[in-house]
Amino acid sequence: MTSELNIVILAAGKGKRMHSSMPKVLHTLAGKALLVHVLNLANELAPNQICIVIGHGADHVKNVINDPNLTWVTQEPQLGTGHAVLQAKPHLDKKGMTLILYGDVPLVSLASLKLLVDATKKRACGILTAILDDPYGYGRIIRDENSGEIKNIVEEKDANSVQKAITEINTGIMVIPNEYLHSWLPKLETNNAQMEYYLTDIVKMAVAQDVPVVSSPAMHSWEIMGVNSKVQLAELERIYQNNYAQNLMEKGVLLRDPARLDVRGELICGADVEIDVNCVFEGTVILGNQVKIKANCLLKDVSVSEKTTILSFSHIEDAKIGANCRIGPYSRIRPETQLIDNVHIGNFVEVKKSSIASGSKVNHLSYIGDTTIGENVNIGAGTITCNYDGAYKHQTVIEDNVFVGSDTQLVAPVTVAYGSTIGAGSTITKDTPKNELTLSRSKQISISGWKRPSKT
Amino acid sequence: MTSELNIVILAAGKGKRMHSSMPKVLHTLAGKALLVHVLNLANELAPNQICIVIGHGADHVKNVINDPNLTWVTQEPQLGTGHAVLQAKPHLDKKGMTLILYGDVPLVSLASLKLLVDATKKRACGILTAILDDPYGYGRIIRDENSGEIKNIVEEKDANSVQKAITEINTGIMVIPNEYLHSWLPKLETNNAQMEYYLTDIVKMAVAQDVPVVSSPAMHSWEIMGVNSKVQLAELERIYQNNYAQNLMEKGVLLRDPARLDVRGELICGADVEIDVNCVFEGTVILGNQVKIKANCLLKDVSVSEKTTILSFSHIEDAKIGANCRIGPYSRIRPETQLIDNVHIGNFVEVKKSSIASGSKVNHLSYIGDTTIGENVNIGAGTITCNYDGAYKHQTVIEDNVFVGSDTQLVAPVTVAYGSTIGAGSTITKDTPKNELTLSRSKQISISGWKRPSKT
Amino acid sequence: MTSELNIVILAAGKGKRMHSSMPKVLHTLAGKALLVHVLNLANELAPNQICIVIGHGADHVKNVINDPNLTWVTQEPQLGTGHAVLQAKPHLDKKGMTLILYGDVPLVSLASLKLLVDATKKRACGILTAILDDPYGYGRIIRDENSGEIKNIVEEKDANSVQKAITEINTGIMVIPNEYLHSWLPKLETNNAQMEYYLTDIVKMAVAQDVPVVSSPAMHSWEIMGVNSKVQLAELERIYQNNYAQNLMEKGVLLRDPARLDVRGELICGADVEIDVNCVFEGTVILGNQVKIKANCLLKDVSVSEKTTILSFSHIEDAKIGANCRIGPYSRIRPETQLIDNVHIGNFVEVKKSSIASGSKVNHLSYIGDTTIGENVNIGAGTITCNYDGAYKHQTVIEDNVFVGSDTQLVAPVTVAYGSTIGAGSTITKDTPKNELTLSRSKQISISGWKRPSKT
Repeated sequence: MTSELNIVILAAGKGKRMHSSMPKVLHTLAGKALLVHVLNLANELAPNQICIVIGHGADHVKNVINDPNLTWVTQEPQLGTGHAVLQAKPHLDKKGMTLILYGDVPLVSLASLKLLVDATKKRACGILTAILDDPYGYGRIIRDENSGEIKNIVEEKDANSVQKAITEINTGIMVIPNEYLHSWLPKLETNNAQMEYYLTDIVKMAVAQDVPVVSSPAMHSWEIMGVNSKVQLAELERIYQNNYAQNLMEKGVLLRDPARLDVRGELICGADVEIDVNCVFEGTVILGNQVKIKANCLLKDVSVSEKTTILSFSHIEDAKIGANCRIGPYSRIRPETQLIDNVHIGNFVEVKKSSIASGSKVNHLSYIGDTTIGENVNIGAGTITCNYDGAYKHQTVIEDNVFVGSDTQLVAPVTVAYGSTIGAGSTITKDTPKNELTLSRSKQISISGWKRPSKT
Repeated sequence: MTSELNIVILAAGKGKRMHSSMPKVLHTLAGKALLVHVLNLANELAPNQICIVIGHGADHVKNVINDPNLTWVTQEPQLGTGHAVLQAKPHLDKKGMTLILYGDVPLVSLASLKLLVDATKKRACGILTAILDDPYGYGRIIRDENSGEIKNIVEEKDANSVQKAITEINTGIMVIPNEYLHSWLPKLETNNAQMEYYLTDIVKMAVAQDVPVVSSPAMHSWEIMGVNSKVQLAELERIYQNNYAQNLMEKGVLLRDPARLDVRGELICGADVEIDVNCVFEGTVILGNQVKIKANCLLKDVSVSEKTTILSFSHIEDAKIGANCRIGPYSRIRPETQLIDNVHIGNFVEVKKSSIASGSKVNHLSYIGDTTIGENVNIGAGTITCNYDGAYKHQTVIEDNVFVGSDTQLVAPVTVAYGSTIGAGSTITKDTPKNELTLSRSKQISISGWKRPSKT
Repeated sequence: MTSELNIVILAAGKGKRMHSSMPKVLHTLAGKALLVHVLNLANELAPNQICIVIGHGADHVKNVINDPNLTWVTQEPQLGTGHAVLQAKPHLDKKGMTLILYGDVPLVSLASLKLLVDATKKRACGILTAILDDPYGYGRIIRDENSGEIKNIVEEKDANSVQKAITEINTGIMVIPNEYLHSWLPKLETNNAQMEYYLTDIVKMAVAQDVPVVSSPAMHSWEIMGVNSKVQLAELERIYQNNYAQNLMEKGVLLRDPARLDVRGELICGADVEIDVNCVFEGTVILGNQVKIKANCLLKDVSVSEKTTILSFSHIEDAKIGANCRIGPYSRIRPETQLIDNVHIGNFVEVKKSSIASGSKVNHLSYIGDTTIGENVNIGAGTITCNYDGAYKHQTVIEDNVFVGSDTQLVAPVTVAYGSTIGAGSTITKDTPKNELTLSRSKQISISGWKRPSKT
């Protein structure tokens, strides 16, 4: 874009109807704060400055966003949108133009904004508009009956019945040349129903000075929706998720039910990926070609290589999973885990901060933590790495070709050497020798004449 | 309300289209029988009497409802709505008025009923009406062309084509002064298409006697929907759940997808509660401030204190969970369990009839039953309390500051004393001494020259 | 139907917009390839021949379908629908008629096809039509203004603006008497916008020869929808699932949310079956009277007898489950498992290739594989059958009335005899004697003066 662009984001509102102690713009949509959505969008326009007007919970907002490249301005008290932009005025360039965005309008598209900025051609004021079936609550666009040119914007509370019938509305998103903004902002007044400084009054000033006011419609009506309540937040969440799902399908991802997909971050898919119902993806998830994710899985910051299948009820976080693996059902994979190719992780198995090499299997009811497992290892059901001594975590090393019998405890630090076999039910406290059978076991005895307790 | 109000609930129908052996009014919506919804509503009007007309499965209905304050009347055979109310006639007061409700119309709102009762001013007959886009199947409200006053109600089967075009319909819910009811009910006749006694014919009688008939519209069109099939039951279930979800959001609860929430009872939320997709709540669930419930959890009769997070796939029933706890994923918490603050219950852990004090952790693959755990206890992975001897359940006591090594069996009754450490893989059958290491363990041996079985 | 019917299924398309390496007609809907849906439908008409025209991925399609009763014809290159049917011409009968179906139009109903075939009365050409609000993209039905008879079909790309306004469209599904087909197919030409051989041009030929062309409307507009993209595939999947759910409810099945049910195969339900939200059924699943399936269960090729309840998060495949059982939550039942009546399988339990007799319980955290369990057996928490020696699987036999203490390993092959009790934490490697207590256990010792590791 242009280095002549400033962006001001209004983010001072409390969001009283959110019924929350958290500032409105920090509420999350698709896993990110509303304001972060708007900031990401702003950054894609490559402005030479982004100025954020904060008020309610100002410090909280600043701390969460924590970006040194932003200009922060405090609006206190909050006396309307015009007043908000006025606070940013000292930071705005003399030349160029300023785009006004809103921290609680998170779904506006880059394409719509580019069209708006292009429409202004740097000398006109530009307004992002929309035609709504139900325009209630929005400022109406008042046009000259003959020329069709924009003459004014009238807020709902100040509109007469003829004006209320107008369906073309102001989204509040505008581009104003800076020279005018510097001149007009100080002239705004509060003679309206809410006794606030309306940013939209500068349209009247533009008309009075014969500065052209152009409009550019938003590409989709949902782009202009703002968040003032949890009901609206949920509506926008569903719109976002539906859009994301449609986009994935258009790229070739098979979704069994697009209405039951949640992506809170980025989901990058190869060819012929299949995703079953009710899956949730968080952070950055990368799925290779022909990966299948069955119903009810949760993946966060995970990469999965080609032809791997994740079976139902799996919960995977911060892990790297190789090709041709079979994970789940009911596999819990915790952070800092790496599985190489052809690994099987089965039901009721937890793996944490471990690496498991090619062809190895942990199929049933086990806990593998702080462990390095080599190739072609078979871990029996009920195996537990005892990695914690009450104070520190210790490492377990299981070399290639090991067979660990069921219900074994591996008391770390310990190394099970190449080719070892561990007998079922053993407590392994010392390193095992290669290729041998190691076990700890008491003799099996029977007690004749013993009576099992019975209800009297 | 008034002590002059009688309520008659019609609940005699079989519900043939339900294809069920259960009487229609016992089918559940949001976890409660249809009739219970109507009864709860009736009780909120504080009538001096509720009379329920039963027929099909009469004893079954009476046994399930089991409320000594109700008057039960049997209608046998079932000859129409007028005939049903006629059975209740002997129980109705001489003075005051009677509200007629239906056991299979569960979503009617208290507000709509209050408006209806208020509209009658005790001397008029009142009809709850609705305007429907598609009035097919409902009795149409026939009004005087000049005065607009209600003259009659014509059932679908008896309506001519002009009458069928009327979109104002009778919901069947009425308020009738008792003096008229006593006089008119015996005069109802069966000269209509279905050869039944229509309750609605009393409107004609009212008109004939110049008793005013007032109408009061239902506040929402879904309030008047009845349940005649499983398809309709599912429709009403979704309407109910959607309403419940909207209501929670308006109070400030964050729902990631209101269409994937099921509340079958009461869900009471503090401030800033977050509920992820596909959760089910049954019975009475109380969530404190800042509680987070992640995707796919089931909670029944549970209270959760502030700042606790319930991770995905957790299944919790009849439990009390303290503040700042972390439960799940895949935690199964069974009845009569109490967790104090800062407790961690992890994956594949089952807790039953136990209490766990502050700061204690059961993080992996364990079964804790009939157990009291003190503060700052760490239970290793794979720990099992052996609470059952084949006849009786026994108690395990684990005092403060205990560390139980992995894969330990605690054979109840047994006490693990303050500060004990249990070695991994131990079978603990006797009480342990304080602050000492207790274990049962066989020597680890290796057998050289041993050959692991291999496929021939 | 008639032995005079030939069916040609067009299945040669690549489906470029599917963005997949798989031929379009092999993509699955409700668990079956699109082409299999159409084939099943075709077979229900009992034709004397089904001819499938393949092209892209021809061998792949043939291998997947693998039906020796089909006639396969290759269309290479693909020059339009007329060209496709032309390839089938050598195989068509001289007499009778041919029904043209499409491998990517999977939801057309048998009823609609029967009406179409009946409408032709063997001497006329028949076209399955539909009236669409938005006919864009479909061939329009051109009728004589006076007689109303069909004169022509004009494709979207060849239609003028008047024709584009017509909402009656050609679905492409047709019945043509074979004698005409043999005569007309060779005369098709490519003088149109796409320069392809249009099958629809035979309508013009019919009109020219005064062969009547009759139309028969599809019973539902969704029947005629084709699959050209993953977006459309998901739309049809949801339509299919919604129809299936409605059908189940009409038969009396209680669905808590019809929008959250997935049946990928056949679900056969007895009376008073209840299915909670978000369940998935694959293959053939049979549920007996009063069976309850709670939320989030997955069942594949399973039969469940009456009054059994499957609790949430259960994953069951290729199993037979008796009456009055209680399975789950979190039960994983793997193939070749049979549970007799009154069996309990609890949380975090995996059962594989095993049979469990009446009244037996495996309630907590266990792995039961290759095992036969008798009646009235209680398997303690954490029990593991060690069925794998690294090369072969071995059998475990647990006879009637056995009590297995918690955290026991049963090293197969092994038999636990009638009435045996196994002490908690035992490793059982040899057969146990009847009615006795068998265990393997080390002495419990305590080490005074021992110091637990602590953070420095």
